[in-house]
Amino acid sequence: MPKFEHLRHKQPTRLSKPRPLIVACAPMRSNVNLSRIVRTAACCGVTRIIACGKPKLDPKIARDGVAEITLEVRRSLPPVLAKLKSEGYAIVGLEQTTQAENLHTFRFEEQTVLVIGNERLGLEQAVLDTLDRVVEIPVYGMPFSYNVATATSMALYEYCRQFPGSPQ
Amino acid sequence: MPKFEHLRHKQPTRLSKPRPLIVACAPMRSNVNLSRIVRTAACCGVTRIIACGKPKLDPKIARDGVAEITLEVRRSLPPVLAKLKSEGYAIVGLEQTTQAENLHTFRFEEQTVLVIGNERLGLEQAVLDTLDRVVEIPVYGMPFSYNVATATSMALYEYCRQFPGSPQ
Repeated sequence: MPKFEHLRHKQPTRLSKPRPLIVACAPMRSNVNLSRIVRTAACCGVTRIIACGKPKLDPKIARDGVAEITLEVRRSLPPVLAKLKSEGYAIVGLEQTTQAENLHTFRFEEQTVLVIGNERLGLEQAVLDTLDRVVEIPVYGMPFSYNVATATSMALYEYCRQFPGSPQ
Repeated sequence: MPKFEHLRHKQPTRLSKPRPLIVACAPMRSNVNLSRIVRTAACCGVTRIIACGKPKLDPKIARDGVAEITLEVRRSLPPVLAKLKSEGYAIVGLEQTTQAENLHTFRFEEQTVLVIGNERLGLEQAVLDTLDRVVEIPVYGMPFSYNVATATSMALYEYCRQFPGSPQ
């Protein structure tokens, strides 16, 4: 019998309670990137995403993530981030900034809003001013920046690694 | 002065030697996914990618990763994986299989070939039979599978977390 055999439909890992993690996205240039973020976030057990502008999900990319996720559309992020902060969420930007901490050694609080910037412009100062902390991902080679959906995947992976749930 | 200010061109993290990490991809359905893998791998300091089939990189997606990476095209993976194993590389599949280990707690050997499966078909048995270990990423919600480029990003992030280089 071969040691490794492909499994097509593995059981998901169970969470004892819904993840208290929210993903909040600045207005994105690309609905492809937003759709990719939705799919990955849904796979990670996130159920609430905040988006700005005129988000339109591509169901071929977001897949069943569309059904799992509540997508809240806002005009801008600062008011909703202020409200979530008052509810006890840590507001964490994913960005390259002064004072940014390295994702490799960052300890997430479980109740977190992960704030994602625009592909070109990043997070505007009014949003940066609402953040408790900023996390960044080391780069080692050209083009010296991760795609926004890729960076979000890495941050979501790191959060899940710290709050892994219980294997079934 | 604001606490967090956007930095557009941050210094990359320096590696004291080239990463002894190779990414090997089964024939992919989508050159978009392959191009995304190339961009992310290049940002992670990977310089050697093996691809099968008729890979065609989209420079708008792969960006400067195209210039940084040596893309070797092979007819199939088993012969080159056998050769790399004989050179001392650990051959690690990224897949859902029997005996797969959880990426959250997986310890990479530094000299590793990370083997990526096709979007639909995964890795064929002839490739699975060449692997030393298989690593998988927990999923928590629908659609219960990460996009292949997303999963690769998470595995590359975890490898870099374990071999982080020296911040400049």
